[in-house]
Amino acid sequence: MQYKEIKNIYKDLHQNVVKIFSKSDRNARVNLTPWNYKNGGGGESAEIMNGEVIEKGAVNFSGITGKILPGSALATKVKGSSFKATGISIVIHPNNPFVPCSHLNVRYFELSKKIWWFGGGFDLTPYFPFESDIKLWHMSAKQLCAKYDKNFYKKFKNNCDEYFYLKHRKERRGVGGIFFDNMKLESKDFYVNFTKDVVKTYVDTYLEIVNKRKSKKFNQNHKDFQLYRRGRYVEFNLLYDRGTLFGLQSSGRVDSILMSMPPVVKWSTKKSALLIKYENALKKYL
Amino acid sequence: MQYKEIKNIYKDLHQNVVKIFSKSDRNARVNLTPWNYKNGGGGESAEIMNGEVIEKGAVNFSGITGKILPGSALATKVKGSSFKATGISIVIHPNNPFVPCSHLNVRYFELSKKIWWFGGGFDLTPYFPFESDIKLWHMSAKQLCAKYDKNFYKKFKNNCDEYFYLKHRKERRGVGGIFFDNMKLESKDFYVNFTKDVVKTYVDTYLEIVNKRKSKKFNQNHKDFQLYRRGRYVEFNLLYDRGTLFGLQSSGRVDSILMSMPPVVKWSTKKSALLIKYENALKKYL
Repeated sequence: MQYKEIKNIYKDLHQNVVKIFSKSDRNARVNLTPWNYKNGGGGESAEIMNGEVIEKGAVNFSGITGKILPGSALATKVKGSSFKATGISIVIHPNNPFVPCSHLNVRYFELSKKIWWFGGGFDLTPYFPFESDIKLWHMSAKQLCAKYDKNFYKKFKNNCDEYFYLKHRKERRGVGGIFFDNMKLESKDFYVNFTKDVVKTYVDTYLEIVNKRKSKKFNQNHKDFQLYRRGRYVEFNLLYDRGTLFGLQSSGRVDSILMSMPPVVKWSTKKSALLIKYENALKKYL
Repeated sequence: MQYKEIKNIYKDLHQNVVKIFSKSDRNARVNLTPWNYKNGGGGESAEIMNGEVIEKGAVNFSGITGKILPGSALATKVKGSSFKATGISIVIHPNNPFVPCSHLNVRYFELSKKIWWFGGGFDLTPYFPFESDIKLWHMSAKQLCAKYDKNFYKKFKNNCDEYFYLKHRKERRGVGGIFFDNMKLESKDFYVNFTKDVVKTYVDTYLEIVNKRKSKKFNQNHKDFQLYRRGRYVEFNLLYDRGTLFGLQSSGRVDSILMSMPPVVKWSTKKSALLIKYENALKKYL
């Protein structure tokens, strides 16, 4: 399977996901922006705005060819000087604080005919945790993985907990999910099918949770807690996220890379008794 | 001059600055939090909240003793294994978008009796630039520097422009000011006097600008532009700021280190015609 074929599969999948999210939220406006990368290829960013459910969502596709920077992690892997990369990334910041934030990424990297790998995963960031939602999220991930390899789930779940960790806060970003990288032992077809299934499982499971929580009444205190906790999301993405930092360092399209930023965020160190109560309830899961 | 003496001078100066800012803003609530550092010493954080002028301000003092991490930049400078550091940092996020945001830092670092240096500076981040404010800011910095060394100003102004730069945006964080580091050729007394004067000049000049702009009427469009531009501040602090990254990596007190974060921030990639107009007016200065 050639890079181009994988890229086209992800491109179609991206279009599909944009449609599903748009249809799921009757008020949402979708801004589609195609873009070109300076060294070759490009992508399409779909920003979903001001929906009934989705306050801001980013559904991005990219398929780019780039030069490997000397001294970068990639440079140690190959003698060549260029890479191909294609993938989809999704971040949904819901309006209702009882609906969790979610994130997905799948990607294919190619340095040469022989050196390639797949990566990806999905994770959930609730503000007000519901035990049943979290169980559903992990169960879906487990059932998905079991279809492909009996060792996937445990490993990918641990990867996720290790990766989405704010060291300075001694806190996980959310309740996790799965995260995988450097996947290359099976065929490309195997991983293409697996990553397609990762996207499908993510969308189905997340929308199930959204539909359960989207009509729950909330007040300004709930909303403020969500805005405050979104600060952790920003801290993770700018301090630790390899995709974000790689994108910014390789002079990628800033608006697409930072489309994952929440629409509104609050930082405060003075905490009300209520905020502390909410935070303690959440921290049991982090 | 011993470390302890310098620490006490900065501590008194910190108290003074907190008083001046509190008095300048009749509605402001000040939360004072003394804290201890795990390896020795500590500090005091003053968070100024919900003022008439100051939406959120952080005025921090610290005087800490720490272990030098192997592999860190400090480790190459000395054989010993510990450092002493004391300093003041200030960030003011004003409520009125016509009042610029400002930042100051002065610090003393000691690795041994013979190896020590001073650093610091101040810089201004307007949202709606006023030519006369920016001229005043730079002129004050220039006059201050001229009292100490004829070469200071030009060098420190360039340092500032180079340091407060968002590479991924190809944009300066604000209109600059002065920035200096590794100052050790003169006596400690010389630098103590200089950094005290840096603090005084910063406070006087900033309050002069505040008083000129604080009563200017603004609407939600102006406020939204301020919240949007504050995103750049967050991006700089988490992606590039050496003080922030050093603090977080050395397990400093997170609430003090991230007290510089703005109280409310917005990110958006879809820009209105008005936002683009405001941004173009600002970008001429960045």
